[in-house]
Amino acid sequence: MTAKTRLFVDQPLAEGNCVSVSQAQAHYLFGVMRLAVGGAVSLFNGKDGEWRCEILEAGKRKGVLRCTVQTKPLQMPPDLWLCFAPIKKTRTDFIVEKATEMGASKICPVQTEFTNSERIKQERLQAHAVEAAEQCGGTYVPEVIALSKLSTMLDHWPEERQIMFCDETELGVASSLASASRGPWAILIGPEGGFSPAERKRLHSMPEAHVVSLGPRILRADTAAVAAMTIWQAALGDWV
Amino acid sequence: MTAKTRLFVDQPLAEGNCVSVSQAQAHYLFGVMRLAVGGAVSLFNGKDGEWRCEILEAGKRKGVLRCTVQTKPLQMPPDLWLCFAPIKKTRTDFIVEKATEMGASKICPVQTEFTNSERIKQERLQAHAVEAAEQCGGTYVPEVIALSKLSTMLDHWPEERQIMFCDETELGVASSLASASRGPWAILIGPEGGFSPAERKRLHSMPEAHVVSLGPRILRADTAAVAAMTIWQAALGDWV
Repeated sequence: MTAKTRLFVDQPLAEGNCVSVSQAQAHYLFGVMRLAVGGAVSLFNGKDGEWRCEILEAGKRKGVLRCTVQTKPLQMPPDLWLCFAPIKKTRTDFIVEKATEMGASKICPVQTEFTNSERIKQERLQAHAVEAAEQCGGTYVPEVIALSKLSTMLDHWPEERQIMFCDETELGVASSLASASRGPWAILIGPEGGFSPAERKRLHSMPEAHVVSLGPRILRADTAAVAAMTIWQAALGDWV
Repeated sequence: MTAKTRLFVDQPLAEGNCVSVSQAQAHYLFGVMRLAVGGAVSLFNGKDGEWRCEILEAGKRKGVLRCTVQTKPLQMPPDLWLCFAPIKKTRTDFIVEKATEMGASKICPVQTEFTNSERIKQERLQAHAVEAAEQCGGTYVPEVIALSKLSTMLDHWPEERQIMFCDETELGVASSLASASRGPWAILIGPEGGFSPAERKRLHSMPEAHVVSLGPRILRADTAAVAAMTIWQAALGDWV
């Protein structure tokens, strides 16, 4: 059974394996959560599923745990990239959190013509993805890749990967995914100001692109990300 | 055309009507946004649609605007209540914001057996709904009603209102709404700890209730609210 406390570690997990936790994790486990030797913690590493582990050593700055039993196999999300234009800090953090909960396999920040932010804190965003996976019971952590320009990304777009492109200016095509095929996909969410006319034209001309409407109200980017992933997961993903 | 700045006011809007803005709005319009006499602002009041208004007076603490032309009719959302168990402050604020963007007609905080919070700041949440409506281009602001106990609410449940009940313990019924009928609906989102066994039993026994799964990962309450409203809007609401 999954222990109440779940942590991500970057070490191999298998029966009998000993795992040392970081200083921050030791503080959390033994200081904040007050766990002690003999207590149970669930660990996952994004590769070996989830393991129930027993605490062997509980120090102020370090700790050692031993894997006892696998409580979940690795559950990969569908092959779905979430591509979005980074916005304000808190909203960007939320998008990464939501993408992890909703089952994106990769998180791709893209710079569009109307994107203000020219940099992202990739490590910080990756840490948010880890935390969200710890929270949501997932056994997989999506990679947050470096910021790239939308135009550059589209120049090298893999032709087998279909795109669900959420265009505010389109209406009433929410159901167009019903006839789309499974396989590698990406969801593309624009910035608050929408896509530029040139970007929209290019996307509309791509055979990989499926235009989807997210209703008659204008959604914030973080809301749009959750709504788009819901539509996709319910039509083509692992919610079906 | 909608002016760049949109504000909610609690006064009647009609051609030629003069509207006075609050001290906070005057500060925002003339101090922060630097608008001046002759400038344009869009106003809505949740009843009369959206009006383009001209600034007649721009003071430090007050201002007067005159309605020139209606730029949007009142667009009511579907008759959908969002019922949720209030959680931490920021997440509760987010749920109210998301419910407004996603088109809920009424926001109903409910206290469940596993809900920690015993009070909500109703006025503060209502202000969040207003701000979200200003942002998302809506012409309607959902009412945030007072916190009530789930058991009490269900005791007086109107039998014509169907319930979409998101139960974490159910799997693979995301499509069960496809055969449901339109009309008055409510979405019910549980607290982080889920519903109690007694609550689940009661909900499952109600003929109004439709159980819906939100995928294999555990979603935070704010994510679940957006996902559930997306499923509903795409199946039975105004996204169709």
